[in-house]
Amino acid sequence: MSLFPPTLEILIDKFASLPGIGKKSAQRLAFHILARDESEVKAFAEALLLAKQSIYRCRVCQNLTDTELCPICSDPRRDSKVICVVSDPKDVVALERGREYQGLYHVLHGVISPMNHVAPDDLMIKELVARVAEGEVEEVIMATNPDTEGETTARYISRLLKPFDVKTTRLAYGIPVGSNLEYADDATLMRALEGRREF
Amino acid sequence: MSLFPPTLEILIDKFASLPGIGKKSAQRLAFHILARDESEVKAFAEALLLAKQSIYRCRVCQNLTDTELCPICSDPRRDSKVICVVSDPKDVVALERGREYQGLYHVLHGVISPMNHVAPDDLMIKELVARVAEGEVEEVIMATNPDTEGETTARYISRLLKPFDVKTTRLAYGIPVGSNLEYADDATLMRALEGRREF
Repeated sequence: MSLFPPTLEILIDKFASLPGIGKKSAQRLAFHILARDESEVKAFAEALLLAKQSIYRCRVCQNLTDTELCPICSDPRRDSKVICVVSDPKDVVALERGREYQGLYHVLHGVISPMNHVAPDDLMIKELVARVAEGEVEEVIMATNPDTEGETTARYISRLLKPFDVKTTRLAYGIPVGSNLEYADDATLMRALEGRREF
Repeated sequence: MSLFPPTLEILIDKFASLPGIGKKSAQRLAFHILARDESEVKAFAEALLLAKQSIYRCRVCQNLTDTELCPICSDPRRDSKVICVVSDPKDVVALERGREYQGLYHVLHGVISPMNHVAPDDLMIKELVARVAEGEVEEVIMATNPDTEGETTARYISRLLKPFDVKTTRLAYGIPVGSNLEYADDATLMRALEGRREF
């Protein structure tokens, strides 16, 4: 005998299928849903469907958007000569928060990772090469994460872009602003020394 | 400028409105939804609505059910002379897991908690008194949590049931089976001593 009614069990299973949510949390969330007003639950269900149905990848930069061309690609004030390559839409948000970068983006939607069976063809790399091949781009900034997979992906792409007349650069490594030297790891310290600049 | 498309922001907000899910986790969940097949997202949305619309409280024991009378209350093999009072539907599941208890349940849907503005009238206490008043019940087992609020609620209810010819009992306190005396807290040890039984 199943202990919760079937429709409740199904909802618990749905929550438990989300990443990082175990059986116990899924139960807690399902009970929370039952305690909500029906109109709120309806709004939640609609938000799920609407997001899924209305969000596409931008035709140019592959970032998530609800228009054919994303707001950044369609902004004439942005510098279309510079492309910043990131692995994830969240990285665009992080970079935009700085309000400094004026170029465009290219979202790979992942990194090359043999361990997780992600090959270059699974990423939006062909689309990047096609953008660069058009000839307008002058610089491609690699801004994948500073870990092994991010690094490998950045190198792979910069090698692919060699034939084109384009500068490829990498985000600087170093001590995070506001952090404490004492707690910096060795690899970061070495990179910070290597990358030292004159005042 | 909002950085994610509006429909995505709405979905992130919906996830963030769930208990225990912060802004970062909500983003992760929303991105996960975008990566799922549309049919799966549809199934999730339907599960939300269906659970909300089809789950009621059992007319008798107030446990969650999708029928007017829950499977336990409508099972003729259960002993209707004993009612076990719990604060939460999850506690019924925990007790049923033991496959030992043969009586019925009564779910309070909370505990008396002045701190959280939960008064006795907010709980299913009147419904319990009405069941006992019918005269068929011989024993009411208080199985609220062994904390201050659970204890207060159990005492409050047992006082309410005094006028009726019914035995009220409390789950035994003591050392959990399989645990280590060394790590038991003082209060539990004292209760275990108090409640000691002859072999």
